[in-house]
Amino acid sequence: MSMLDGHEAERKTREQIEAEAELFGPLTSSVRSLIDATVMTDAAPEHIVRARALVEEAAALLDSRRMSAPFGTKWSADGTRRSWGNAVIGLRNPIAPLLEVAYEDGLASAEADLGAAYEGPPGLVHGGVVALLLDQILGGAADHAGVPGMTGTLTVRYRKGTRLGPVRVTARVDRVEGVKTFAVGRVHTADGLCAEAEGIFVLPREVRDMVAEMGRPQ
Amino acid sequence: MSMLDGHEAERKTREQIEAEAELFGPLTSSVRSLIDATVMTDAAPEHIVRARALVEEAAALLDSRRMSAPFGTKWSADGTRRSWGNAVIGLRNPIAPLLEVAYEDGLASAEADLGAAYEGPPGLVHGGVVALLLDQILGGAADHAGVPGMTGTLTVRYRKGTRLGPVRVTARVDRVEGVKTFAVGRVHTADGLCAEAEGIFVLPREVRDMVAEMGRPQ
Repeated sequence: MSMLDGHEAERKTREQIEAEAELFGPLTSSVRSLIDATVMTDAAPEHIVRARALVEEAAALLDSRRMSAPFGTKWSADGTRRSWGNAVIGLRNPIAPLLEVAYEDGLASAEADLGAAYEGPPGLVHGGVVALLLDQILGGAADHAGVPGMTGTLTVRYRKGTRLGPVRVTARVDRVEGVKTFAVGRVHTADGLCAEAEGIFVLPREVRDMVAEMGRPQ
Repeated sequence: MSMLDGHEAERKTREQIEAEAELFGPLTSSVRSLIDATVMTDAAPEHIVRARALVEEAAALLDSRRMSAPFGTKWSADGTRRSWGNAVIGLRNPIAPLLEVAYEDGLASAEADLGAAYEGPPGLVHGGVVALLLDQILGGAADHAGVPGMTGTLTVRYRKGTRLGPVRVTARVDRVEGVKTFAVGRVHTADGLCAEAEGIFVLPREVRDMVAEMGRPQ
């Protein structure tokens, strides 16, 4: 169980989890398309008014029963972790732009196709969205390397504007110093290197104390 | 006209712009509620399937006519600027969490109520979302002070986890050195100071060259 997780493991089977993914994944994907349609629409006013009524009807159906708390991180019996609500990688989160992070030889990498909803300067990805992607993948690299933590410091250097469209994000752990994990990462587009980042990740003190109590080597 | 803007001024009247805001604002607000409902729903599967069909129908109506390019920044004849597609402050962008930034005595400030769609660690705002808010408000402070730029470097120091719910974000220009504007900002919740940031904003070279050609004092 993750050191960062306050939730209990669930008793769901793999089949139940797959069935949930098949139910919620397509809904989320449709809402993601709706977000893009909302930002880009130039439809006639009567279509916009009608679309809004449909959206309200859909939200009322979904709100007919709500979870008692945000999704957080859930663990299944076989050790699979789900962060389905996560703002960057969540299967159930329509604002999440990065769907899959791959890990190979210590390198975390992911691709995303950033549409109009991620705009900052005209035609470019918002600088804060670039930071959002980097924070997630740097933290993922630290986690995957077995030296996880919460973000302590994040520094992003912007080399050029990141054009809306396909982006590639990569990260790896650079070094570990005591309780601090230093991870580095980059954002590329077809234009080349757009941004670089360094993140320092630290486990909260109470988690470190818990690990120490459990007798794990420091 | 903004130095950062490639768009032409529009010939829309104030009344036309207000009518557009009255049309698109409520739609965006409803889609924002739908996003929250999607992340939080625990509804029966048949409700989820039905909700998805409604969402698809709404998206098709909106997609019946689309703009030819993302919204960018538009200027009206009276000098009003609209960044309605912006990922943080866009009136037409359902993922945008910060709706209004106020400026007073050099301080930019804004409040947002961050729901489950902005989650990172369980119950907490994603560290990258904290960076996203800070990047926007730091850039806004630089712009409002008359020393705008694109983000060159953004450094965020996280002091404690930012609980989901109401947050307050503030920023101001610290100093200007040559072509660089240094802005600083903070995120607070009821728990106190959660994060601090420094951003360095620089005008792109071609914009500086254009300003120089126009004979404006350097």
